[in-house]
Amino acid sequence: KGKFMDTFKVLVDEIEAGDKAAMPPNAVKWVREMVEYNVPGGKLNRGLAVVEGFRQLRRGVLKESELFRACALGWCIEWLQAFFLVADDIMDASITRRGQPCWYKVPKVEMKACNDCILLEAHIYKIIKTHFGSDPFYTELLELFHEVTWQTSSGQLLDLITESEQRDSGGGDLERYTYDVHRSIVVWKTAFYSFYLPVACAMMLAGITDKAAYKRAEDICIKMGEYFQVQDDYLDCYGDPEVIGKIGTDIEDSKCSWLVVTALTRADESQKALLQEHYGKSDPASVAKVKALYVELDVKGAFEAYEKKSYEEITALINAEKVLPHGLFLFLLNKIYKRSK
Amino acid sequence: KGKFMDTFKVLVDEIEAGDKAAMPPNAVKWVREMVEYNVPGGKLNRGLAVVEGFRQLRRGVLKESELFRACALGWCIEWLQAFFLVADDIMDASITRRGQPCWYKVPKVEMKACNDCILLEAHIYKIIKTHFGSDPFYTELLELFHEVTWQTSSGQLLDLITESEQRDSGGGDLERYTYDVHRSIVVWKTAFYSFYLPVACAMMLAGITDKAAYKRAEDICIKMGEYFQVQDDYLDCYGDPEVIGKIGTDIEDSKCSWLVVTALTRADESQKALLQEHYGKSDPASVAKVKALYVELDVKGAFEAYEKKSYEEITALINAEKVLPHGLFLFLLNKIYKRSK
Ligand SMILES: [Mg+2]
Ligand SMILES: [Mg+2]
Ligand SMILES: [Mg+2]
Ligand SMILES: [Mg+2]
Ligand SMILES: [Mg+2]
Ligand SMILES: [Mg+2]
Repeated sequence: KGKFMDTFKVLVDEIEAGDKAAMPPNAVKWVREMVEYNVPGGKLNRGLAVVEGFRQLRRGVLKESELFRACALGWCIEWLQAFFLVADDIMDASITRRGQPCWYKVPKVEMKACNDCILLEAHIYKIIKTHFGSDPFYTELLELFHEVTWQTSSGQLLDLITESEQRDSGGGDLERYTYDVHRSIVVWKTAFYSFYLPVACAMMLAGITDKAAYKRAEDICIKMGEYFQVQDDYLDCYGDPEVIGKIGTDIEDSKCSWLVVTALTRADESQKALLQEHYGKSDPASVAKVKALYVELDVKGAFEAYEKKSYEEITALINAEKVLPHGLFLFLLNKIYKRSK
Repeated sequence: KGKFMDTFKVLVDEIEAGDKAAMPPNAVKWVREMVEYNVPGGKLNRGLAVVEGFRQLRRGVLKESELFRACALGWCIEWLQAFFLVADDIMDASITRRGQPCWYKVPKVEMKACNDCILLEAHIYKIIKTHFGSDPFYTELLELFHEVTWQTSSGQLLDLITESEQRDSGGGDLERYTYDVHRSIVVWKTAFYSFYLPVACAMMLAGITDKAAYKRAEDICIKMGEYFQVQDDYLDCYGDPEVIGKIGTDIEDSKCSWLVVTALTRADESQKALLQEHYGKSDPASVAKVKALYVELDVKGAFEAYEKKSYEEITALINAEKVLPHGLFLFLLNKIYKRSK
């Protein structure tokens, strides 16, 4: 992980060197500050997953140069994530991110954050060109990032219009929240870039060219991503705020959470009416009523059943894999199974 | 040009077909509406320049399939422009664009426009993959769009921070407005994507692989782009609002315009003080004082001299070109020379 952070420094320096040839010092300084503010502050799970996945594919120790390349590609995912998060915070009108003000909330930044997103994305292709431009998989790697960018922004769109249709209908008509809608949002918005992308990057680094292998990896990763997001929804309501680092507000925000979808499928007419009435209201009494209904309908029990079933299905998919090492997926699964944060 | 619009319809249909496989109908509909609102409403000069440039390189008539490919690639530039303009309007807090409300000003859209930018950009790589994915220049074409995207957003950054530093200094210190600053903003923000990109696209379509030829084309295009933007600055003040379709506000907006830079280089201390005092104020009396100073300093004459010199330099560069057909550049130059809109 120290090595991973060292690689970040190398990459920022390279970007800065390119900027210096093109821009005056105030712009060069801006870009460095913007990158340092937005890229490295997260948990780095996605970036580190490239390194760990590559290690699994190589079944052991990596050469120094291989490790550097895996780190560099891992950082591309962190850059991609930063690009999406900066934009997401603008769109969600969020206030803080990773314990500091959202970038667009920094007084001198404001809407310049829109352009900074574009720059962050452009950096990805600079890094890829510099470090993988002469690899045989270069073009496929570009296509992978293009595809995942499109998938993730399509998922964002779905999320945004589902939410705004709900709001515009005056909070009525929770019927639009179904498992199908929940699953599409989750798969497109999160699963591709958080689970499939790191695994596919590791596979490319390892020289895998069989398209069918990527497809099988995708199927497994999508299932993990779905499970991961259901956990996220669960922890928003039942997690320990001390542990997850925030106080969940999915009920207040009228989110299309797995919990409310489950409640809706289990509720009778009067319970549905109660949800219609109280879901998406910010007063604590309404939130308490929703939570009480979750207890009544044993949504927690439903989650535990889902978790068990999901774990079994993912494990079965992994065990059915004949070519890729199971460790490539198991290390990810172990990281998220029964997580409390 | 009818053919060009026909190609747009094909491309939107292709994108929609991809969306349908991935998203529910409300999202599919959103994407079509968003694309139709933002992509085709401009003058289409950049897109058409790919077609015309390709025709020049082929010295004559194009096959139907070649024409379609040139149109499709031209549309990629129009998509890129739409992506930048949607973001630019958010950042500039603009109200209208091409005679309709800016996309982010449409009530149901608002900040979702940030994500729509990302989608517009993602479409470029879908179109390129579909129509040029098996061409020998595919990877170079991807790199060209990556590079130009980075250049343009770097130019935007420069423009944004120059403007906000000026504003934060309380409108004082116009000294930061120099020909160098003006030139970097213009070259990076406009010239690469508006002039070099269409020409380079046409050259790729024509199968040109010599890197030196691209470099020479870039030099010519950058000079044309610079000239084009100086004209833009000139027309903002001296153009006929009926003809250019808007009332210029560069003086009120304290823009780093070629006119004010020229005035600053020609002004004595008391004239500089007058500019410091009145440039960037929105009251008509201040604007009139600035315009009167422009007359006193014969900024118009300076523009005419610049125009003549610039035209001669560009023509000389074109005439020195031994390999590429001069028509590739002359048709662009003729379009902009002594333009009144
Ligand atoms: Mg958010
Ligand atoms: Mg969001
Ligand atoms: Mg959540
Ligand atoms: Mg603007
Ligand atoms: Mg602007
Ligand atoms: Mg202008």
